[in-house]
Amino acid sequence: MRQSRLFTKTRREAPADETAKNAQFLIRGGYVHKEMAGVYSYLPLGLSVIKKIEGIIREEMNAIGGTEMKTSILQNKEVWEKTNRWDDGVVDNWFKTKLKNGTDVGLSWTNEEAYSNILKQYINSYKDLPIYPYDFKEIFRNEARSKSGIMRGREFYWKALYSFSKNEAEHNVFYEKAKVAYQNIFERVGIGNSTYITLSSGGTFSKSSHEFQTLTEAGEDTIYVDEQQRIAINKEVYTDEAIESLGLKKDELIEKKAVEVGNIFNLGTKFSEPFDLKYKNEKGEFESVFMGCYGIGLGRLMGTIVEVFSDDKGIVWPESVAPFKFSLVEIPSEKPEVKEMSEKIYKKLGENNVLYDDRDARAGEKFADADLLGMPYQIIVSEKNVASGKLEFKNRKTGEVKMISESEIDNLLK
Amino acid sequence: MRQSRLFTKTRREAPADETAKNAQFLIRGGYVHKEMAGVYSYLPLGLSVIKKIEGIIREEMNAIGGTEMKTSILQNKEVWEKTNRWDDGVVDNWFKTKLKNGTDVGLSWTNEEAYSNILKQYINSYKDLPIYPYDFKEIFRNEARSKSGIMRGREFYWKALYSFSKNEAEHNVFYEKAKVAYQNIFERVGIGNSTYITLSSGGTFSKSSHEFQTLTEAGEDTIYVDEQQRIAINKEVYTDEAIESLGLKKDELIEKKAVEVGNIFNLGTKFSEPFDLKYKNEKGEFESVFMGCYGIGLGRLMGTIVEVFSDDKGIVWPESVAPFKFSLVEIPSEKPEVKEMSEKIYKKLGENNVLYDDRDARAGEKFADADLLGMPYQIIVSEKNVASGKLEFKNRKTGEVKMISESEIDNLLK
Repeated sequence: MRQSRLFTKTRREAPADETAKNAQFLIRGGYVHKEMAGVYSYLPLGLSVIKKIEGIIREEMNAIGGTEMKTSILQNKEVWEKTNRWDDGVVDNWFKTKLKNGTDVGLSWTNEEAYSNILKQYINSYKDLPIYPYDFKEIFRNEARSKSGIMRGREFYWKALYSFSKNEAEHNVFYEKAKVAYQNIFERVGIGNSTYITLSSGGTFSKSSHEFQTLTEAGEDTIYVDEQQRIAINKEVYTDEAIESLGLKKDELIEKKAVEVGNIFNLGTKFSEPFDLKYKNEKGEFESVFMGCYGIGLGRLMGTIVEVFSDDKGIVWPESVAPFKFSLVEIPSEKPEVKEMSEKIYKKLGENNVLYDDRDARAGEKFADADLLGMPYQIIVSEKNVASGKLEFKNRKTGEVKMISESEIDNLLK
Repeated sequence: MRQSRLFTKTRREAPADETAKNAQFLIRGGYVHKEMAGVYSYLPLGLSVIKKIEGIIREEMNAIGGTEMKTSILQNKEVWEKTNRWDDGVVDNWFKTKLKNGTDVGLSWTNEEAYSNILKQYINSYKDLPIYPYDFKEIFRNEARSKSGIMRGREFYWKALYSFSKNEAEHNVFYEKAKVAYQNIFERVGIGNSTYITLSSGGTFSKSSHEFQTLTEAGEDTIYVDEQQRIAINKEVYTDEAIESLGLKKDELIEKKAVEVGNIFNLGTKFSEPFDLKYKNEKGEFESVFMGCYGIGLGRLMGTIVEVFSDDKGIVWPESVAPFKFSLVEIPSEKPEVKEMSEKIYKKLGENNVLYDDRDARAGEKFADADLLGMPYQIIVSEKNVASGKLEFKNRKTGEVKMISESEIDNLLK
């Protein structure tokens, strides 16, 4: 894409009320627009990152048998009353509104009720199970405070898969597959090394659950990490019993700040029972469906990637989620060869792979913008480079610069 | 996809309160789930149709210079107060809710304010224009009644593009391009023949606007159609003056019921002025940006396609938006050759192209389901067919059946 056609522009300063590093960089880079605390619009570059993350998650969910659907945001009070989760005394982060006729409706803050209610229509027999539907959708949580940028939104884009199994044994097989799929996702988006599967509280659902926690000072959680075994325990369940159950040793665990980028839950029959979600087994007897839940917030994941990889100059995107693999920086010159070479490279690499800074701007401004925007590689075309027959090729992460010939450009996409 | 793995099932009856034909068929086919009047969840087959429609719209919007972004659903009161459209006395279909601290927020019912507010940050100079950002998002309108199935939702999935031009002349050039893009979209989704560009009211925005109206008895609008010239006039602006302005003759116009599947508006400076959205022209003077708006409701479009093409047996999808091009109907048999042949064809055509009815069910039920679900072509594999070396190939729309040999299957995807 030509940067001259990208309507967003970089800014020197983020809004004064924005204290989170991820949002500061993303706003300065024109990736997102802050509508209010915890509510962001995604501008073209930001949406591009979200779509790449979404594509990776979708592939991994489909690979373990997931079937995509899309549930509504407006929620029916009667459905939620079945589990007693309509009550504001039980769930304190609802957004609610009213239809014209006075009927109360809520905005989706999670999907257990909607899924149980829909699936009840379709699950009758053991032949109908197991099934693994999932959703990408906007989720709304009325957080009292929201100061972590796109890492804790009042409105956020979310993937949730629910597993519907015949029994705990069948559930456990899928749960282990989902763990691997989640590890694949965090690996593929570039944060595999700093992400730990973490034993954590099961809340009101079950004895425990698994979170995927990524180490960062911006995280709101504290975890105890075994770096060798690559597992961790959340502070909220950090007991001698928990340590022992995982075969860990207390003196080998290190306290770290981390952010929860995903979680997986054993829901058991907590939701199937109130919805009377049963199937007939091979003996003709009715049994409650055994459920699991597997969530990832895409905005939080994007914010975490920014927190983990940014430096003082700006964002550093992993290739898999970068809006473009390359920034092509044309240093304005009166010699037509500079623009000619830039156009030639732009054409070679393709508009989907390169953000071509074709603007009439100072070199310093262009370098600063390329660093702030954070594409993984920068190709610099200047008078001097063109004359020498070699172009500068800079790795945004390491800062390493090497000189490459025009013919080597062809190999960059391989 | 194997139908045995599709968790949805067909139903004989739609809910009693569902009076719209589109929703009756879509619910019976397991395409959508009704959450409440005007609010539907999209099940896997339904989401597949929406994604195909979305892909076509995205291609056409990108082809005329559109840039995709995604604005938030939660809306800031202060932004809307600038145009006086926060007031429930002015806009009567808001859904509103509150943050924990008591701050009022609204749910997006249109995007003029959000776009003007965001673009104000990025438009400074004539060099920044024109630009054409657009959004796919959920839109919320608190309709007093909602009885047209997915054709008039309280929550619906929507595409809106806004054009930001230097002046009316530049706007007009794009407006004509957008008209063509819209015609392409309706052509590509299969309703080109029954869709008329229609002069209609500009509401409070401008003297007139253009709607794209598709003929169907299920439509809520009345239009007067010139079938030769393929243009129409909405009843709300059906005056002698309007007829004359289009060079039409009153006695050649036919009254029809229709549904508005798209609309395009000249917004002029109605929104840029309250937002002080100005640019500096080449002389260094400030001028207000000239805006246009181009909307399509994807659910409404999907519902319209169902209304236009369904027959008494069910839905008839045009190829471009069908979840699958083929239904492969295996008639259960004790002879293993039937399943063998079915599996072979399934593999040949590929899981993304064919819905393979591999269920253990009666032939009559399978035929009825294939007709209800509405894939464009049905391939029937029975004992008799396999023995004769020829398979039945049925066109869902025309009902025409021909016998094809196994080798002809390979040509079906070309």
